[in-house]
Amino acid sequence: MNLQEYIIPLQVALESELKRQISRLDKVGIHSFHDILTYHLGWTGEGSGQEAQGKRVRPILLMLSTASCGENWELSLPAAAAVELVHNFSLVHDDIQDNSNIRRGRETVWKMWGMPQGINAGDAMFVLSNLAMLDLIPTYSPEITLKGAKILQGTCLELTCGQFLDMSYETKEDPTLEDYWPMVGGKTAALISASCTLGALLGKADESVQDAYQSFGHYLGLSFQIQDDLLGIWGDMDLTGKSTESDLVSGKKSFPILFGLRNNGAFAKRWKKGPILPSEVDEIAETLEKEGARSFTQETADQMTDMAMKFLSVANPKGKAGEALFAFSNDLLSRNA
Amino acid sequence: MNLQEYIIPLQVALESELKRQISRLDKVGIHSFHDILTYHLGWTGEGSGQEAQGKRVRPILLMLSTASCGENWELSLPAAAAVELVHNFSLVHDDIQDNSNIRRGRETVWKMWGMPQGINAGDAMFVLSNLAMLDLIPTYSPEITLKGAKILQGTCLELTCGQFLDMSYETKEDPTLEDYWPMVGGKTAALISASCTLGALLGKADESVQDAYQSFGHYLGLSFQIQDDLLGIWGDMDLTGKSTESDLVSGKKSFPILFGLRNNGAFAKRWKKGPILPSEVDEIAETLEKEGARSFTQETADQMTDMAMKFLSVANPKGKAGEALFAFSNDLLSRNA
Repeated sequence: MNLQEYIIPLQVALESELKRQISRLDKVGIHSFHDILTYHLGWTGEGSGQEAQGKRVRPILLMLSTASCGENWELSLPAAAAVELVHNFSLVHDDIQDNSNIRRGRETVWKMWGMPQGINAGDAMFVLSNLAMLDLIPTYSPEITLKGAKILQGTCLELTCGQFLDMSYETKEDPTLEDYWPMVGGKTAALISASCTLGALLGKADESVQDAYQSFGHYLGLSFQIQDDLLGIWGDMDLTGKSTESDLVSGKKSFPILFGLRNNGAFAKRWKKGPILPSEVDEIAETLEKEGARSFTQETADQMTDMAMKFLSVANPKGKAGEALFAFSNDLLSRNA
Repeated sequence: MNLQEYIIPLQVALESELKRQISRLDKVGIHSFHDILTYHLGWTGEGSGQEAQGKRVRPILLMLSTASCGENWELSLPAAAAVELVHNFSLVHDDIQDNSNIRRGRETVWKMWGMPQGINAGDAMFVLSNLAMLDLIPTYSPEITLKGAKILQGTCLELTCGQFLDMSYETKEDPTLEDYWPMVGGKTAALISASCTLGALLGKADESVQDAYQSFGHYLGLSFQIQDDLLGIWGDMDLTGKSTESDLVSGKKSFPILFGLRNNGAFAKRWKKGPILPSEVDEIAETLEKEGARSFTQETADQMTDMAMKFLSVANPKGKAGEALFAFSNDLLSRNA
């Protein structure tokens, strides 16, 4: 199947729905506030365009999940917008928390408008996601809308817990590989998993099928993050558009790094001495690879991918949308940047 | 009537409901995250106790509104917790945005745990408020619960808009008295108004009665804020527990200051020269008073109070709870610190 061709209408409708949701701010008459959000979403300002918008992975997964349960994907558009807005709210705050200047190749919101306005813009994005979710009414019943809202809020709580753990690890002396899972489960897997669950809910699937979509999304999210961690050290940094710096320099407690620390060899010895300089990155990445971190990380990602695909088979997605969901997941997990 | 006696059971039940809502974090097993929120809410840590908890104005108004519509106030507890959590989420972020070290006589969350964790704790508090609201099910129907959620989210959008304006005014060259209203309408009046509306909704009042409660809350909120602005310059700073600094020093664009700028006399001349020093505060407060700022501010607050009381009469609150609502509002507006 031609995935790109299949998802173009979804992408077009999503951008339009996102704009409609965000326009709530414009209607209040505060255009300069609206501008901050349209900048972050990649529609306006210097460097705007597809690259700046990101991949919209979560809403596409949600819509494909709905469609592959046999329902019209257009019905789930407000929820698709909601998960993308939650994701972007967390990015806006994340950039402040991480002191990151660049996101998707452009200056971050807080660098452009200052930290106080950055916090507030993230807050507004979260409110808009909650309002978007309530727009499932009257297409869906109050019962389904409330169930959807509850899934989304539960996910947001997981997000904040994952974020709490991530920041705690920065000062934790000996974070272990076991610490990795609850952190990444909250930070990455929860929202991807919720997107698939919500899609199935709005596709009016049975609870058991919703559960299968949820597990599919959970493992998809874990695999996605572990590959991201791998690319954060051995990927082609020019292609990620995220940062010219390796995770080795930023000191992020990523999967390969936690493996290296557990291994307690030359890498761990160097890591404990203090911050790694950009000039050392190539050498240390090689050391870490020799200690088996790269292959172990790849194997773990592959295991997660296998689990995701098993659960997707259990979910038994239907028709063209089902094919597209398999293809989209494969694309997502075979990226090299 | 004895107001204090009447509201004690409400206060006790509210604290217990708030603890129940916050315990969602503890159940996830991240006790150290839970601790940040219990500290902010005044239950734990140095200086905990009634003073540190704040007045819980919004949830009390909500419960009294429900009860004065003839319904049991206990039914509205989840919504009461929700509005208090929204208020506190905004305070946690506000303190970061304003670079404030002290809140209710204690170190602010971000001073204790750092800015990144402070942002995240505020985010979690907001998520918990959304989850609290959904707990109106099964006491209330899905339709009423959704209406309540929509009112709360619409209010949160107004909050972020008010916050945006407030921060924008810091750099705006000539903010006017006209700029004051949309800012304070969003920052203060919106949530107080929503608390009264939600109370009436959960009291199963007719729409026209809900509207009267909404207008009552709107003017109550405006009067409350204008009096707060008055106290920020002429109040006994020792009693407010907020800051030992006058609004004159912090440079806040409060109502009397905007009046003084419009007046364009000695005060405005001095203001435009640059930051006011603590040593000048007494003299400049006197100048501002002589220019009529204090009396105009008091008159405006009184007008807002009159409007609030008129709408409360239209709302026609019933029974002991109705008496308590009148008494509580009077208490709120006649504070001197």
